[in-house]
Amino acid sequence: MVSQQVSALERMLDSGNFSSGCPTRVVLDHVMSRWGVLILVALSDRPTRWGELRRVVDGISEKMLAQTLRTLEADGFVHREVTASIPPRVDYSLTGSGGELVERLLPLVDWVTEHAPAIVGRS
Amino acid sequence: MVSQQVSALERMLDSGNFSSGCPTRVVLDHVMSRWGVLILVALSDRPTRWGELRRVVDGISEKMLAQTLRTLEADGFVHREVTASIPPRVDYSLTGSGGELVERLLPLVDWVTEHAPAIVGRS
Repeated sequence: MVSQQVSALERMLDSGNFSSGCPTRVVLDHVMSRWGVLILVALSDRPTRWGELRRVVDGISEKMLAQTLRTLEADGFVHREVTASIPPRVDYSLTGSGGELVERLLPLVDWVTEHAPAIVGRS
Repeated sequence: MVSQQVSALERMLDSGNFSSGCPTRVVLDHVMSRWGVLILVALSDRPTRWGELRRVVDGISEKMLAQTLRTLEADGFVHREVTASIPPRVDYSLTGSGGELVERLLPLVDWVTEHAPAIVGRS
């Protein structure tokens, strides 16, 4: 059905790549979480400050923002930079690996953005 | 940082596309959920029966499989086909819209699959 993927089903079954608790599942859970996606898209432009992220990712709590940023930082997708000013300033940006990930995330998010109104209108 | 996306941040802020409760957020939550991604990837090959999905999506409960399939069906991504045999046979497949979505999902999942071991090894 999707040509470049000859046997996704067999691959999922055989390789153990998608077994519960394996690295692929762990990283997918981080990236494809409700907030992970939105934060990665928000950072796709340029380094962004905490307060900006808080505003742009509508509905996120301070706790979830902190937690999701920590997870994405631990995975090496996000870089946290503290500038010693008064008050101190904290910028978040994508790492090289985060940029590679987001390049593959944006076409999906763009497709969803374009088609979502019709999809939600169905139900 | 990512060239094709001139101002993701401004777009998120201005358009209201990513506001809490808007269609984009609703559909992203369906698609990017832990189980949504795995079910869509499993279906990318060919029509698949309930029992196969249950096996291939390691760790999913019957309840979550039923619920996620219903959501993806309501969104028009998945088609449910009942064949009147004894016992009745139920196949799930991607619709045209589901195929378009999965085409954009697979490059992301492939990237994560390739890089996940190194990413998880970091922490």
